[in-house]
Parts: sequence; C-alpha cells; structure tokens
Amino acid sequence: MSIVVVGSVAYDTIETERGGVTDALGGSAAYFALAARFFAPVSMVAAVGTDFRAADDRLFAERSIDVRGLERCDGATMRWHGRYHEDMNRRDTLNLSLNVFADFAPTLLPDQQRADYVFLGNISPELQERVLGQIIKPKVVAADTMNHWIEGDRPGLVRLLSRIDILTLNDEEARMLSGEHNLVRAGRAIQKMGPGTVLVKRGEYGVLQFGRDSMFAVPAYPLEEVADPTGAGDTFAGGFMGYLARHGRMDEVMLRTAVVYGSVLASFVVERFALERLIGLSWEEIDQRYRAFIELTDSRHPRWMSQ
Amino acid sequence: MSIVVVGSVAYDTIETERGGVTDALGGSAAYFALAARFFAPVSMVAAVGTDFRAADDRLFAERSIDVRGLERCDGATMRWHGRYHEDMNRRDTLNLSLNVFADFAPTLLPDQQRADYVFLGNISPELQERVLGQIIKPKVVAADTMNHWIEGDRPGLVRLLSRIDILTLNDEEARMLSGEHNLVRAGRAIQKMGPGTVLVKRGEYGVLQFGRDSMFAVPAYPLEEVADPTGAGDTFAGGFMGYLARHGRMDEVMLRTAVVYGSVLASFVVERFALERLIGLSWEEIDQRYRAFIELTDSRHPRWMSQ
Repeated sequence: MSIVVVGSVAYDTIETERGGVTDALGGSAAYFALAARFFAPVSMVAAVGTDFRAADDRLFAERSIDVRGLERCDGATMRWHGRYHEDMNRRDTLNLSLNVFADFAPTLLPDQQRADYVFLGNISPELQERVLGQIIKPKVVAADTMNHWIEGDRPGLVRLLSRIDILTLNDEEARMLSGEHNLVRAGRAIQKMGPGTVLVKRGEYGVLQFGRDSMFAVPAYPLEEVADPTGAGDTFAGGFMGYLARHGRMDEVMLRTAVVYGSVLASFVVERFALERLIGLSWEEIDQRYRAFIELTDSRHPRWMSQ
Repeated sequence: MSIVVVGSVAYDTIETERGGVTDALGGSAAYFALAARFFAPVSMVAAVGTDFRAADDRLFAERSIDVRGLERCDGATMRWHGRYHEDMNRRDTLNLSLNVFADFAPTLLPDQQRADYVFLGNISPELQERVLGQIIKPKVVAADTMNHWIEGDRPGLVRLLSRIDILTLNDEEARMLSGEHNLVRAGRAIQKMGPGTVLVKRGEYGVLQFGRDSMFAVPAYPLEEVADPTGAGDTFAGGFMGYLARHGRMDEVMLRTAVVYGSVLASFVVERFALERLIGLSWEEIDQRYRAFIELTDSRHPRWMSQ
C-alpha cells in the first residue's frame, strides 16, 4: 500500500568535528521517503523553491518516489545550518531559514487523498492537521513532533494526537509532553492522549515502543563510525512505516519487525553525511544488516543455540 | 560451581529526591553475593569492623552465603554517603570513609583458593591481583573497575587485564580506559588488553557485550519507579556470574543468557533502597521477569508470532 509523507525538503549545511557538507539535500520528507521507498511506493508533499536542483528531482524520480506533490514556489528552498559537538547527541542550529516553507499550505492530489498510510513529519500541528484533513480514509496515521511544538502549540498538538495511531518523539520530548520524568509513565500517558503506539527515540540508545499491552525495546545498532546523525529519526520512521505499508497489517509482530527495520535504515544513514548513504543503499545491504541486528539483540538466536 | 567474590561490605547512607536510608548494608561484595546466590554457592572475601551488625551476618548466612571470609577487623565498617540528583544517572559522594577497608590484605581460605569462578569487585587493581594470585586454578575470572583506578593505577590495571576473562565497566570508563570515544572501538580496544569478554554497562540504557566474534546489546528493563540505583552494576555482575557458574560453560549462548539474568537482577535492586528488594526476592519473581524481559526484547517472540 502507498504512503503519503508531508514534511520539509531542505538544503542542509552540516558541520561535525570531522568534516561537513554544504547545501546538501535534506529535510524530514526527504529522509523519510528515501528510507520508505525500499518497502512501498511513497508520495511526497512538500515545498521547494525555484533554486531546487534538477538533479535532486531526478534523484527522487529515479528511486520511484512520487514528486508530483513537491510544490515549486517562488523563493528559496528551506535552509538549515547545524554544527554537532564531539558528543553527537548535542548540536547547535546556526541558521534556519524556512523560506518557501513558511507559507506552505498544501493541497493534496486526488490519489494522495486516497492514501492508506500517512506520515506527518515534524511540522506545525496546524499544518499536520490540515494535511490529515484531506485524507479521505487513512488506515494508519503516524506523526512526528518536537519540543518547539510541544511548547508553542500544545492545544494544536493535543488535538492532533486524538486523531493519529502512532507518534514518534525523542525521550526529552516524551517527558515534556507528558510531564512525567519516568519514561514508562511518560509513554503510557501519551498513549492516553490518543496514539495507540508511541515510539520513543533514544538516539544511540535505540527505541522504546509502547503498544496496546506491551513494551518493546531495541538498542541502536552499534557503529564504529558515525559521520552525521542528521535525519536518523526520519529515516527510522521511513523504514518503520514502509515496512507496515508493505505488509498492510499492524499487529504486534508487524510493529516489532517494523521497529527493527526502522533501526536498520537509521543505522545506515548516520554512516555518511546527509543522504549519501541512503541514496546508494541496496536491498541486499538492508537484508544483511537486518540479520546482523537480530544476531545483535537475540539472546536465543539459532546461530548461538546450535553451538 | 562455587564463586568467590572480593569487594567491599559497607554501611551506606543514600539520599534521593524521594527519600533515603541511613547506614544500610551495602558494598560491592554484598550486592554481588545477594544476586549470585540465586544461581550458585557464593563465598565472600571482605573486611568489616567491630560495629558490623549481627543481623547482617545472619542475613547472609540465612541465604546460604559463606561469610567465613568476612574478616572482622578492629575499627569501623566502611561508610559511604551519596546523594542522587533528580536525573539518577548523576550522584554526589558526600562522604567516603574506608575505615577497616583501607588496610585490607585478605588471605583466602583453602577452599576459596580452589574456586572456579572469581569476581574481583571494584577495589584497587593491586588488591584484585593479590586475591587472584591466591586462586590456584580459576576457570573464569571477572573484574569490575572504575575511573578512579583507570586514572590512579593504570599500570596495575593493565597488568590485571592480561589475567582476566571478563571486565565490567561503564561507558565513560570504557572510553577513558581505551582512549576511544566510539563505544565499539573502545570495547574492541579493551579486549585487546586481555579480557575476551567486555561488558559495557550503560545504566538505564542497558548493557553492550563484546565477545570473541560478536556483539550483544540489551536494553535495561524499563521500570515505572526507580527508587535507588546504588549497586545496580554489582547486582548485574552477580546475576551474570551466578548464571555462568551454575551452568559451568561460557559459550556465546551462555554469555548472552547470563547478560539477560544479570539485567533482570539489576532491574529488581533499583526498585527499592539499598538491598531491600534483593533480600526479599524470590526465584519465581526472577523467572517471571526473565520471561517479561525476553518478551520486551524479542521481535520474534512466540507470543506475538502466534497472532
């Protein structure tokens, strides 16, 4: 089944202790789409400026990502400039220019309105709701959010939460949204606000999933090199939603396997700067790392049991 | 097979945002022994003062923990006074009085010298080596260490590492010991210093185990209430070594299951202050939480697969 994603498409300038990139393609919708496309057809809803590069259009198109909803507006494409500390869990935003994204008010295409799977990337709850309102009969709706909206538009976010199935956010945001310091209580409290499934992203420490009557915890795949953590959360969401859409079911085993595939995709994206690793990624590599991930986390894995 | 543990036995005063205890039984050897005893016979090597309470002697004895090696010295039992921040990963030591522990130079009993499994708790590398030197033919030797010894006696620690099978330490200590910021590189570098198995303890984020040709990652069991994190690492080590000693093998599946049991025991001890939860713990509770732990971490668990 097909997925519609709404979010940002941006040109990112990223600095780390060991290098950087300038005006690299990025944005939540881009990371999401380039991960989800391995599993299901993806249609993007976003705004870009007149400076949007033809090569980037081709990049999506060549990977069967539908860019008809990539609205070309007068003005410049959104820009983000960030710098990571040596501890890559910390970063400073040096510049954020929304540009054409500031006034973005999308109208979905007729076939997008019939989407079964919807991912509302990290944009204002108002914009998320405006998009959701255009989907006729969504099967699964997931949304991402952040501290900025929790503080700046809590009423809008609370309204949105009552209409979605899955929420992704990081641990600090889960604490902020729920008012609970303890993460188990925080997750349970957020479920009561609407989403039956809450995914707490913990960066290098993995993901904690709260389901109807269960919790599922996975570590992040341990890497020898992390070049650039940008987009890891959206890439996770892309792998996660892609897997669900591919199989068209949302029982516990599907949700758990989706979390593992999301973690696998996220483990690739951080290996290089911006989208470089996702762009060149093959299904064989995903499959291999999925098996490595199961070996990493399964105390009763056949490889070890047969010793 | 039986285990010998050397470490501290202390009276701890612990403060948190929500309560505290004064002069509660503690110390690395006490936490370790009260966890390991569920799996195998444990014999302690430690020093206590003339103020050591008869009730605490009985507490060990009633749980079949051998306290013949608990040397009664002139002076006071070691005291530690710590205060946790709201973020329980942070704590301040308000007072540490080694007392009788300062001059502790143990001589092992003949049957302790024939031990198969040895745990060298977090004491000076010199003292760890002195104890290890008395064990005639150990089968598995594990040690714990901390920043204090990494900075203060690196030569002694490096000498010890070449003689042990398993090292436990936290993530910051792994970085400090190896000089590598990346945890995968850090673990591999420490393995090259001697121990074939390195267990990196990450507190609420779980444990990362480096084995001969594999990594194993488990999250911590998510709890709704954490009363007191004191002793979680030693309790983990007790469950881990206890499981290995019970089964007398150290292949990959044994090591992985041992990590899970260590994590299970650690998840109990933090639920109440000091040793309270471990003291009252039953095997049925351990077994139940082991199964819950597998459900928490296994993406392909039978309970979900049969849906």
